[in-house]
Amino acid sequence: MSLTPDLRHAVADLYAAYAACLDDGRYEEWPAFFTADGWYRVVARENFDRDLPLSVISLKGRPMMVDRVVGITSTIFHAPYYQRHIVGLPVLAVADDATIHASVNYAVFRTKRDMAAEIYNVGQYIDKIDFEDGKLKFKKKFCVYDNDLIPNSMIYPI
Amino acid sequence: MSLTPDLRHAVADLYAAYAACLDDGRYEEWPAFFTADGWYRVVARENFDRDLPLSVISLKGRPMMVDRVVGITSTIFHAPYYQRHIVGLPVLAVADDATIHASVNYAVFRTKRDMAAEIYNVGQYIDKIDFEDGKLKFKKKFCVYDNDLIPNSMIYPI
Amino acid sequence: MSLTPDLRHAVADLYAAYAACLDDGRYEEWPAFFTADGWYRVVARENFDRDLPLSVISLKGRPMMVDRVVGITSTIFHAPYYQRHIVGLPVLAVADDATIHASVNYAVFRTKRDMAAEIYNVGQYIDKIDFEDGKLKFKKKFCVYDNDLIPNSMIYPI
Repeated sequence: MSLTPDLRHAVADLYAAYAACLDDGRYEEWPAFFTADGWYRVVARENFDRDLPLSVISLKGRPMMVDRVVGITSTIFHAPYYQRHIVGLPVLAVADDATIHASVNYAVFRTKRDMAAEIYNVGQYIDKIDFEDGKLKFKKKFCVYDNDLIPNSMIYPI
Repeated sequence: MSLTPDLRHAVADLYAAYAACLDDGRYEEWPAFFTADGWYRVVARENFDRDLPLSVISLKGRPMMVDRVVGITSTIFHAPYYQRHIVGLPVLAVADDATIHASVNYAVFRTKRDMAAEIYNVGQYIDKIDFEDGKLKFKKKFCVYDNDLIPNSMIYPI
Repeated sequence: MSLTPDLRHAVADLYAAYAACLDDGRYEEWPAFFTADGWYRVVARENFDRDLPLSVISLKGRPMMVDRVVGITSTIFHAPYYQRHIVGLPVLAVADDATIHASVNYAVFRTKRDMAAEIYNVGQYIDKIDFEDGKLKFKKKFCVYDNDLIPNSMIYPI
């Protein structure tokens, strides 16, 4: 498999749809962006660079993600906030086994009710993307963020 | 009409040119980004989500936009500021009538003279794009922003 | 030469790779993004618009860039910080001599150890891109930033 224009556009569409899903608050659709055995992890750059295992959150497999969504939407008590993702141009490569390796810079802005928008999380998605049932899905999605200091807690996916 | 690579690039070019026009301060060129009957509206997400009509600004048709530009450039008294748009990856679909539906995240940074840059407006363009005289133009451009709190007033288009 | 989809993707890849190089801190690879006689300049918008020569930094030719990298990595004493570039959609044109003219909005976020991320530099790349040894390189890269006020000093390239 090579980086054809069609594949590039499909990858760009995946990132755009992922951001729109989260920013619209359609959290119940979020696990479907991953393969069945997908791994979602949010980790500070400092830990990631040193290969330390500590993460803010690490979910392996869609069932764990579905569980997290239940937490977000019905269990966890938190002040609501809006997220807004701005995703940059991706650095892409295709591995021998047809897995797409993508790294993409992102900035997530947060807006709380009656407050100004603020920088919430900036970093890099370091992802592996595979086809599952003919659709591109994240087999691995690491959100490696620069800012060790997370304002309040992190409720919604990044 | 389908989402060919050429059409995708033309849409990306439209958004890039739109941002450059505003950030360069070429406001007199701004109405030409819309169809003759185009609708430009800036609305808080809270109002938009509840289908409430209240907007910060709502201009229907190019003449109203031209009028607004006269206001911006010669009538309204305000402290000057720079705008800088960062526009994300678009979510695109083509409707039966060949209209392109686009939603695109944006962040606008504002810099006032001798001040630090700040987050001015973050949100989502929810747009309909049509061909007019062989060029892509906005038939509808809704700037749905997350931050209810607008720092000072909004002078320039978003 | 015309703006084929392949050329567009190559330009997007160049910008994505440039940002990744800097954000990863691989400064020694940075000069190779320029042609041998490339010109890198960081200039305030106010000066640029008035055609004033004053720049924060202006490096002509790869040797000056290599020298700067030595400064960054071994000579200059400074508190470390992370950079994160978000690069927008490019406005592209191809000149008669096959040079690509690109202008692209960017926002650079900075994160200092144990601090929140902040807006560091926002502006526009105004670039000329040429082929050298079959690869796209910057013949000219002007980083024209909106915010006259630079928080602390500027150590790393923008």
